[in-house]
Amino acid sequence: MSKTTRDESATDKKELNQFEQHYFTSYDHYGIHEEMLQDTVRTLSYRNAIMQNKDMFKDKVVLDVGCGTGILSMFAAKHGAKHVIGVDMSSIIEMARKIVDLNGFSDKITLLRGKLEDVVLPFPKVDIIISEWMGYFLLYESMLDTVLYARDKYLVEGGLIFPDKCSIHIAGLEDSEYKSEKLSYWQDVYGFDYTPFVPIVKEEPIVDTVDNNAINTTKCKMIEFDLNTVKLSDLDFKVPFEVEVKRQDWINGVICWFDIVFPAPKGKKPIEFSTGAHAPYTHWKQTVFYLEDDLECEKGDILRGELTCSPNKRNNRDLDVKISYEFEARGVDAKERSRKNENVYLMH
Amino acid sequence: MSKTTRDESATDKKELNQFEQHYFTSYDHYGIHEEMLQDTVRTLSYRNAIMQNKDMFKDKVVLDVGCGTGILSMFAAKHGAKHVIGVDMSSIIEMARKIVDLNGFSDKITLLRGKLEDVVLPFPKVDIIISEWMGYFLLYESMLDTVLYARDKYLVEGGLIFPDKCSIHIAGLEDSEYKSEKLSYWQDVYGFDYTPFVPIVKEEPIVDTVDNNAINTTKCKMIEFDLNTVKLSDLDFKVPFEVEVKRQDWINGVICWFDIVFPAPKGKKPIEFSTGAHAPYTHWKQTVFYLEDDLECEKGDILRGELTCSPNKRNNRDLDVKISYEFEARGVDAKERSRKNENVYLMH
Repeated sequence: MSKTTRDESATDKKELNQFEQHYFTSYDHYGIHEEMLQDTVRTLSYRNAIMQNKDMFKDKVVLDVGCGTGILSMFAAKHGAKHVIGVDMSSIIEMARKIVDLNGFSDKITLLRGKLEDVVLPFPKVDIIISEWMGYFLLYESMLDTVLYARDKYLVEGGLIFPDKCSIHIAGLEDSEYKSEKLSYWQDVYGFDYTPFVPIVKEEPIVDTVDNNAINTTKCKMIEFDLNTVKLSDLDFKVPFEVEVKRQDWINGVICWFDIVFPAPKGKKPIEFSTGAHAPYTHWKQTVFYLEDDLECEKGDILRGELTCSPNKRNNRDLDVKISYEFEARGVDAKERSRKNENVYLMH
Repeated sequence: MSKTTRDESATDKKELNQFEQHYFTSYDHYGIHEEMLQDTVRTLSYRNAIMQNKDMFKDKVVLDVGCGTGILSMFAAKHGAKHVIGVDMSSIIEMARKIVDLNGFSDKITLLRGKLEDVVLPFPKVDIIISEWMGYFLLYESMLDTVLYARDKYLVEGGLIFPDKCSIHIAGLEDSEYKSEKLSYWQDVYGFDYTPFVPIVKEEPIVDTVDNNAINTTKCKMIEFDLNTVKLSDLDFKVPFEVEVKRQDWINGVICWFDIVFPAPKGKKPIEFSTGAHAPYTHWKQTVFYLEDDLECEKGDILRGELTCSPNKRNNRDLDVKISYEFEARGVDAKERSRKNENVYLMH
């Protein structure tokens, strides 16, 4: 069933996202593909990266990891690939077959349904891997592990991965009103004390579009992955960050986002896109981690810390995130305003 | 992970609903309960119905089918019930235990985790059943079958069910722009023909909030269920409808919604609510079925037909809906404008 909304009430928008969860169980449903296709930042970046690299694609064998409706496979076939192999576990691949056929690519694109680890490719090696594997916060429910498996098993020496660079960024965020609403709601629910929900609400990052003006610190690139060399174990990481406050304000949480870069011909500017609040909307939005403290900040104050990210032990599709931070206030009431804390989060 | 949006772009709203599906797999997640609680039409109707019937609840044993966070159980306990038994399969019931305890109801409310069909109740019979079992289009993924099981096994002769009456309604709808956008999108997706999606898009009802002004016919109550007597087999039904056009316009589809009525003390107006476009927002919104035809209509034209609703044979949580209709145009160009058709839908 297709669920959309066209009215303007904020309540409505807040309410629909989660309630609808139990109506969808997988990528089988067309709606999710409609949304990914309609994310033009995402889809056009892939198309432009392939077009920009037509010479690299010419007569090459390409593997599309998690091909969905086959859009990236068709971009590659259209722009010179000798053959494209698309692999997907979801039943959506049956729709991809019809589309690929209808658009005259059935001799150029082979679609295989199954886990990449299980299927038998018609070529022993591929020259290029393309994949749109990214999840919220880059790594949440991402297919990166499958891309790395494909790289190690199938990619020729010197082969290319589209995209091949990605990075996660962080900044401080003012979000007093929404944070306090979200937490105070549980104090009095129709006259009852629902505060047992508060710790659960606190440990859940929020995926949301954030107004760039709410960011009140400098930005910090915490980590960068080069897909040509990254190892699975690198996705379990602890990284430092440090940002400087740009105005008198409150910091109620931190915001994270990721940037994506594609390979480029020598001397050309690579195609890239950002999922940050400063950049055009993407369906990945941004990820907000509320801090235990509300930090009263002045221009020049420093927020530094470490972010730890690891697969949850019990369910390795979930992510454990820990943010330990030291807020070093400077100037007015520096001592009173400084804080040190450690917060844990579960993305599930 | 909590996913919300606060920006105002229509694209954004359309895009987020379905993409987020794979992050939630059940009622275990707190967000869905937050949304149901924050649906005040829903929750206050239950509270008011219980308060209005305090005399009926006094010293009674109450069963709450699908108790979630325990809100309805606490309403019943607070307003006189001798004992309330809340049953839920989801892990959310562990949170309900904490809340019930914190609010001092642990001696009055017994919470049982499991399928109602499997759990052993501490009382052989109950005097009242309360349940918020309704799904989109009333019956989609609803818990009504479980409520009927509870009624037949546990409810004393003459016992009460809250709510006990529900009905499904239909009307004609103008929605040209969105319908044609939704269908035409697939004609050219980044230069490719994606029309194999069109039949799938057509057969999917849309759950959405609709502007009441877009309804351009009279309304028709198609079916009413009395929970005191309805049988499971009654939920597989075929019902006629007939509505009259109220203005010169286009009918692009039909809209359905449901109304809910609670028992009331003799001589008192019962508590009731509607999920129609004319009524305040609820998280159930309305359900739109686009018709194959776009009907050019004049005041006084008649749209009549039959709606068939049955559990899908392959997956009985899905609903097969069939709408056969005859559009009887009157007056200007009556013959040219009249149509007869039959459309099938799958709610899944």
